[in-house]
Amino acid sequence: MLDFLRPDGRKHEELRPIEIETGIAPNATGSVLIKFGKTQVICSATIENKLPRWMHAQGLKGGWLTAEYSMLPYSTLERKDRDSTRGKVDGRSIEIQRLIGRSLRAVLDLGKMEGKTLWVDCDVLQADGGTRTASITGAYVAAKLAVQRLMGDNVLSADPFNDSVAAVSTGVFFDEEVLDLNYHEDKEASVDANIVMTGSGKFIEVQSSGEEATYSEKQLQRLIELGKIGIKKLTEIQNKALSV
Amino acid sequence: MLDFLRPDGRKHEELRPIEIETGIAPNATGSVLIKFGKTQVICSATIENKLPRWMHAQGLKGGWLTAEYSMLPYSTLERKDRDSTRGKVDGRSIEIQRLIGRSLRAVLDLGKMEGKTLWVDCDVLQADGGTRTASITGAYVAAKLAVQRLMGDNVLSADPFNDSVAAVSTGVFFDEEVLDLNYHEDKEASVDANIVMTGSGKFIEVQSSGEEATYSEKQLQRLIELGKIGIKKLTEIQNKALSV
Amino acid sequence: MLDFLRPDGRKHEELRPIEIETGIAPNATGSVLIKFGKTQVICSATIENKLPRWMHAQGLKGGWLTAEYSMLPYSTLERKDRDSTRGKVDGRSIEIQRLIGRSLRAVLDLGKMEGKTLWVDCDVLQADGGTRTASITGAYVAAKLAVQRLMGDNVLSADPFNDSVAAVSTGVFFDEEVLDLNYHEDKEASVDANIVMTGSGKFIEVQSSGEEATYSEKQLQRLIELGKIGIKKLTEIQNKALSV
Amino acid sequence: MLDFLRPDGRKHEELRPIEIETGIAPNATGSVLIKFGKTQVICSATIENKLPRWMHAQGLKGGWLTAEYSMLPYSTLERKDRDSTRGKVDGRSIEIQRLIGRSLRAVLDLGKMEGKTLWVDCDVLQADGGTRTASITGAYVAAKLAVQRLMGDNVLSADPFNDSVAAVSTGVFFDEEVLDLNYHEDKEASVDANIVMTGSGKFIEVQSSGEEATYSEKQLQRLIELGKIGIKKLTEIQNKALSV
Amino acid sequence: MLDFLRPDGRKHEELRPIEIETGIAPNATGSVLIKFGKTQVICSATIENKLPRWMHAQGLKGGWLTAEYSMLPYSTLERKDRDSTRGKVDGRSIEIQRLIGRSLRAVLDLGKMEGKTLWVDCDVLQADGGTRTASITGAYVAAKLAVQRLMGDNVLSADPFNDSVAAVSTGVFFDEEVLDLNYHEDKEASVDANIVMTGSGKFIEVQSSGEEATYSEKQLQRLIELGKIGIKKLTEIQNKALSV
Amino acid sequence: MLDFLRPDGRKHEELRPIEIETGIAPNATGSVLIKFGKTQVICSATIENKLPRWMHAQGLKGGWLTAEYSMLPYSTLERKDRDSTRGKVDGRSIEIQRLIGRSLRAVLDLGKMEGKTLWVDCDVLQADGGTRTASITGAYVAAKLAVQRLMGDNVLSADPFNDSVAAVSTGVFFDEEVLDLNYHEDKEASVDANIVMTGSGKFIEVQSSGEEATYSEKQLQRLIELGKIGIKKLTEIQNKALSV
Repeated sequence: MLDFLRPDGRKHEELRPIEIETGIAPNATGSVLIKFGKTQVICSATIENKLPRWMHAQGLKGGWLTAEYSMLPYSTLERKDRDSTRGKVDGRSIEIQRLIGRSLRAVLDLGKMEGKTLWVDCDVLQADGGTRTASITGAYVAAKLAVQRLMGDNVLSADPFNDSVAAVSTGVFFDEEVLDLNYHEDKEASVDANIVMTGSGKFIEVQSSGEEATYSEKQLQRLIELGKIGIKKLTEIQNKALSV
Repeated sequence: MLDFLRPDGRKHEELRPIEIETGIAPNATGSVLIKFGKTQVICSATIENKLPRWMHAQGLKGGWLTAEYSMLPYSTLERKDRDSTRGKVDGRSIEIQRLIGRSLRAVLDLGKMEGKTLWVDCDVLQADGGTRTASITGAYVAAKLAVQRLMGDNVLSADPFNDSVAAVSTGVFFDEEVLDLNYHEDKEASVDANIVMTGSGKFIEVQSSGEEATYSEKQLQRLIELGKIGIKKLTEIQNKALSV
Repeated sequence: MLDFLRPDGRKHEELRPIEIETGIAPNATGSVLIKFGKTQVICSATIENKLPRWMHAQGLKGGWLTAEYSMLPYSTLERKDRDSTRGKVDGRSIEIQRLIGRSLRAVLDLGKMEGKTLWVDCDVLQADGGTRTASITGAYVAAKLAVQRLMGDNVLSADPFNDSVAAVSTGVFFDEEVLDLNYHEDKEASVDANIVMTGSGKFIEVQSSGEEATYSEKQLQRLIELGKIGIKKLTEIQNKALSV
Repeated sequence: MLDFLRPDGRKHEELRPIEIETGIAPNATGSVLIKFGKTQVICSATIENKLPRWMHAQGLKGGWLTAEYSMLPYSTLERKDRDSTRGKVDGRSIEIQRLIGRSLRAVLDLGKMEGKTLWVDCDVLQADGGTRTASITGAYVAAKLAVQRLMGDNVLSADPFNDSVAAVSTGVFFDEEVLDLNYHEDKEASVDANIVMTGSGKFIEVQSSGEEATYSEKQLQRLIELGKIGIKKLTEIQNKALSV
Repeated sequence: MLDFLRPDGRKHEELRPIEIETGIAPNATGSVLIKFGKTQVICSATIENKLPRWMHAQGLKGGWLTAEYSMLPYSTLERKDRDSTRGKVDGRSIEIQRLIGRSLRAVLDLGKMEGKTLWVDCDVLQADGGTRTASITGAYVAAKLAVQRLMGDNVLSADPFNDSVAAVSTGVFFDEEVLDLNYHEDKEASVDANIVMTGSGKFIEVQSSGEEATYSEKQLQRLIELGKIGIKKLTEIQNKALSV
Repeated sequence: MLDFLRPDGRKHEELRPIEIETGIAPNATGSVLIKFGKTQVICSATIENKLPRWMHAQGLKGGWLTAEYSMLPYSTLERKDRDSTRGKVDGRSIEIQRLIGRSLRAVLDLGKMEGKTLWVDCDVLQADGGTRTASITGAYVAAKLAVQRLMGDNVLSADPFNDSVAAVSTGVFFDEEVLDLNYHEDKEASVDANIVMTGSGKFIEVQSSGEEATYSEKQLQRLIELGKIGIKKLTEIQNKALSV
């Protein structure tokens, strides 16, 4: 294991360079461009003064958060057709946007957002692995920025966030457990995991899938351990971006 | 914890009564009706002598397995509209059928199915929690029955399955970790996990989600432990159904 | 005509073995699994406390009955794609579900179902000819069971059914008029008829189509005659299933 | 019955004034504007030198005939939304176009149309009852005109039609059986039948439906009788239009 | 330029023979069949006593006019699939119906149509170039006829039209600027323009497009000039049709 | 006219500040972020080694250029639903992407792109008026960058562009003709024009529409004049961006 070298020279437990640029989409209430190495995602948060129809139908109170995720057609090395052009729903995108929404709602007190929907949009500008974890990590910052602005404008009276949230991938690459896989590693990985945690160290989501393969319990435990390491660093970077 | 009582009287580590009836859909190559308590799913496996278009497009060899999952409209207490009637894709169904497909392909040597697609269909007849784990557990039996028949007919020369696969849910219900949640428990659970494993004890998938909530690492570990217990029992029941 | 032998040994006027098993889908208000020989259809009836939008739009009073028909993908010898997957409406299914709905409404006093919609779902588990007539015959029993239960629960104060309804196919097979065609006969038939009648001997629907062929008036009359014979027997079987 | 008066003064066995104007759509191979009283339908026939994909897939030889039926939005007293605008398939239109296609194919020797598809389009310009029977009656004339032209151009070497086809509605209106119902009669009718026959007196299709009602065998027989009378007259009118 | 001869013998500034037949679709409030040479379009206008949903949503007052444009499948030399059959929106049709709507609304005082939507439908019966300009020119006459009838019936108290509107194409054909191109000319033209003007000589729309080509300012000016000449003649023909 | 002041202080003939940043989407072959004041559009160009299906069907040679245009949901002050979510095609987007494609193809020698499709994607990041003209202007630069790179890689042997292309809006705002309208001006404008021209001063497209209004020929001429002024400046800025 001493001699193992990741293709880009990183150590097992090392994140790619992470950057968060705020204010990328000025018409959104909050927005960031987040980079996990070459992976770049535009994350924005927009407030709407109405609730989804199903909440009305079910007589539910409070607010809601909905996430949408999309890959821009030029984000991949081979151009990816738009959902609207293909006229067919992309199952992977649906899975990811459901994960983003669930992850942010886990740290959100919807009761403090009465009658409001927070829309979180994640559009991948460049895809090099880990777009869903970059999306969650960036979406939290965009949403928190939006909340700060809405509190400044007295639209919200209290902060609905009771913790921060970040996400990172881990996986088994040539029998080695590694953190934050890029596209090349992800493609070759036999196990692919995504870990979503709060800034205070609680778990929100663990998704660990064999890619047409299986894995041992020992491997599972190491993937969780690596996730904890990554989330800790991402939380620091998020806090720095928000404190500017 | 001694005094904790699950609504249906089960212990923390206890599965619901599991039944597997084979041959339910005679036109399929293999089929079962599987019951996890009140949850009932029709699982069938059908062989098709062609590959999906994308495999041709990418020049891929071998075979493929595709899964489809659907809830029959009368499977729920309130009638559920059909996908085809709503004219809108149900994100949850897409997630589940991707999971079923991934789980079975993890124990399948696709190279032994040259030019063939195995279609696995899971239609929920009655839903009372755990429909996706019942689907995976039943789908394996249906697919194995199909494979046995195709080998008997000399359509396949070798068994493409190199292990069995089963799945079970675990979750945190009123702060207690429990196995195989029924609908009532699932609805109240703060954490919901699905564990997919092979008969030989390897992991295929761990999905552990806070339902607008978070959970500690200790809880995560207990949920994994319960999953292992459940899978062991399900594997025995699958083997019995197949040995008839 | 004395020497004519149907492939499965039946006489011209003979139905296939008919079976009706009640309670197959416990979450439905009423349900049956009906078998016309190898043809098997799950029929269920579910009540919903609201009317279709178009009735509101037109200011109509009373209740409504809507039918949906679908072939499960593994019901045919070659797997049939799901409507939702093909993303295209199947004209044959639409015709059949319109026929089922019309047939049941002909014996239903919708005025006794104020504000309620009765959903009738027919899902074909195995297809061997006559799935539409088995669907109508089974759907009546499922709907009647639902009505009996709703009356027992005081949800309905009077029985909206004023007669029973059953359906059977007839056709011209190698120049012979026969009753209740199986798939093989149906495929070879030059004329294909479906007769829907009430238990009291009234007609609801006669559909008699040349399959890229024509037929004489004498043949038409014999097809109607055979239909009357079949319906009489089916009505007895329905009554027995309901009296259990 | 002596005193019975139909709203427009017709006798029980009387057709509305029938007119057939040929050449209405000059770019079609054959076309007519057919009028059954106020009901007006543009019928056209166009030849295409290829077969539907499913025929290729099934390795079928010969030719094919496909029919499409649509109501122009201004054909009804209240504007009817276009199918393309509603984005939803109209079940009634599908039923009708399947009927038109089946009816014409019954008198067509597809083996004489090797590799060709005859498209028959029926667009309702004004709807006053009987649009499907006017469509079939007009579609035959348009298709026959197209065939005559293709034979003149040596595109077809033999006439694929071995008989003519016409259609007419009959129904029970205030307990009286009448021929060729207009919209007002159709709306009030308790039984609605459509009879499709050849010029030589053979049946192609009998569809007799109770409109949320039932009918006796005697009524059924009278509806068939009236259909025969109507078809005979329509055949004469078709022949006259074709002999011009 | 003296020797230049258009394929059908017309001069540069000459329209094709224009005919307007009123009352073609009797169930519409107003309707015409308009011919620009071989191009034939059915234009109808129908009134509906409600506003589009988006006007309600935006709290807008007054009335509205919506246009729909479609080519009948037999209007072209090769049959054109229906939008509803292709299940895909035709971008060209959308562009044209937006242009028709915008053109008529430019001369319409929507405030005088409180709560009403005027539906304008243009269905091309035969296409030989200029279908969009024939549609606008005919749609105005149909809409004006509808308005006259609604005023006669006291449904409208004042005429919402404050001017007439007509449209004509111009283009560069073999380096010559010509008026009202037929299909052959249109297909060969390097520049294609559509000019929409009022009867009083105001402009509503100028659309001048190089067909994978560019053009000089001098050419642009000549195309506008020819449009003015054509519109003047079309306005006279419209007035004549309306004064009958 | 001397005293007229545009809301943002610009003169009649003055463009907003224009910026072009290249390389914004590194996985595309060429890409820019273009700003017309607050309007920001990501334009990318990607090459694909196949032709659209319809070119094959029609046996066409050479290459093709296809454009797609979309507004990111957070580009507007109120969040705009995604096309894929609304499940309905946006007519405006279709019109715009057709215009972008036509404009670029007018200066492109498709014969020099044998067997290749150049995909041009324009995604609006911030919308403040003129998104279609910014898209065309930026798309040209992205496409030219792509072409330069493909020539450098010897994928293309000759430059298929024979001129540059840019676009700008003009309009009538409170009776004054102005250049490059922002959202506020555009919303209030009675006439809205888009002018597309080449770098050498040729016209490609003139679209001048009254917004439910009409305009005189003098106004039309001034709008064209302003367009020429704007295009000249834009061409200089494009050249500068490309020469870096």
